[in-house]
Amino acid sequence: MRIGVLGTGMVGQTIASKLVGLGHDVRMGSRTAGNEKAAEWVEAAGGTASQGTFAEAAEFGELLFNCTAGGASLEALEQAGEAALAGKVLVDVANTLDFSQGRPPTLTVCNTDSLGEQIQRRFPQTRVVKALNTVNCQVMVDPGLVSGDHDVFLCGEDEAAKGEVVSLLESFGWKAEQIVDLGGIGASRGTEMYLALWVRLIGTVGTPHFNVKVVR
Amino acid sequence: MRIGVLGTGMVGQTIASKLVGLGHDVRMGSRTAGNEKAAEWVEAAGGTASQGTFAEAAEFGELLFNCTAGGASLEALEQAGEAALAGKVLVDVANTLDFSQGRPPTLTVCNTDSLGEQIQRRFPQTRVVKALNTVNCQVMVDPGLVSGDHDVFLCGEDEAAKGEVVSLLESFGWKAEQIVDLGGIGASRGTEMYLALWVRLIGTVGTPHFNVKVVR
Repeated sequence: MRIGVLGTGMVGQTIASKLVGLGHDVRMGSRTAGNEKAAEWVEAAGGTASQGTFAEAAEFGELLFNCTAGGASLEALEQAGEAALAGKVLVDVANTLDFSQGRPPTLTVCNTDSLGEQIQRRFPQTRVVKALNTVNCQVMVDPGLVSGDHDVFLCGEDEAAKGEVVSLLESFGWKAEQIVDLGGIGASRGTEMYLALWVRLIGTVGTPHFNVKVVR
Repeated sequence: MRIGVLGTGMVGQTIASKLVGLGHDVRMGSRTAGNEKAAEWVEAAGGTASQGTFAEAAEFGELLFNCTAGGASLEALEQAGEAALAGKVLVDVANTLDFSQGRPPTLTVCNTDSLGEQIQRRFPQTRVVKALNTVNCQVMVDPGLVSGDHDVFLCGEDEAAKGEVVSLLESFGWKAEQIVDLGGIGASRGTEMYLALWVRLIGTVGTPHFNVKVVR
């Protein structure tokens, strides 16, 4: 599949590399064409990897990942353009972590709204699926890094879109029973606000390679 | 031990009943002496159970539980009085869930502050330990309701106070390895904001008798 990955940071690089490894054609998007980190990634990833602006990556992809920093995601998606995003599944893995007042970070949106909802409202023709944002990016693409059973969450308004993302997550190594569908995009508030616990658990657990399991 | 339980709702009644069952002398506190729900609880709990105002319950207890609705907790603690709270361990199990705009609820404080921190700031002589607020009250006092391994969180500034709460939680049935110390009271933001995920998981799981396990 042709996939556009918006964002050149660690999350974008990790997801994009996994997708290339799975045989997809991947274009990494950034603010400016010829972005240094994107160019390095293309070099390292080889094969089907390419790069371009947010707009070029969005136009290229049949499915898109938002791996930009959460606080900059709406601006990045504006640059990608409404037309290029329309009708496509957008997997939003971003968190609006704000480190400007130090650590642990706060969120730039929460409680009465969420980034997932903001994106879906701004781009109503885009099939937004919030997913994977509750785990470290290495765990996103390699759930076996955390031993035993643990769960990943997704939510969104479009059932078919969620089905496509479930398949993609299964190709990443997540088992069907590890994928918890929380319902509509409003549940993004839940998975994004969980980050306030997650950033503190890193310190307690001593590694970002952990996750939670919902026990019934 | 003499324990004061502030709050007459389901959480207060469940915790107070468990404490009576464990042989503690328990006084339930409410806004007004002779509160109907408190009186009914005393009747049902029998034995060492008693009731009074917030101030009377706080004076009575060597250790206190804040089981009031989170949005009303600071006012309830003001009524209890700074002197009655001073030097005592206060286990804060409250969440500031706001249902005024419907379900799922939002929080009245989060992100850059938390109820746990607000209480500790307002009553600096009180040894506040945030604990148990991430599970349903029946699970709080009977962790075996959820099968298998799962975790409960606590945090606070006073190590000895946290030690006392760990012992109390063990008497409720929590094993030492299920009790995760997140550090200082600032971590209340993490466990309180997790509620945004928790309220949505109730719908997905289909029962409030669930919890999460931190998997490493």
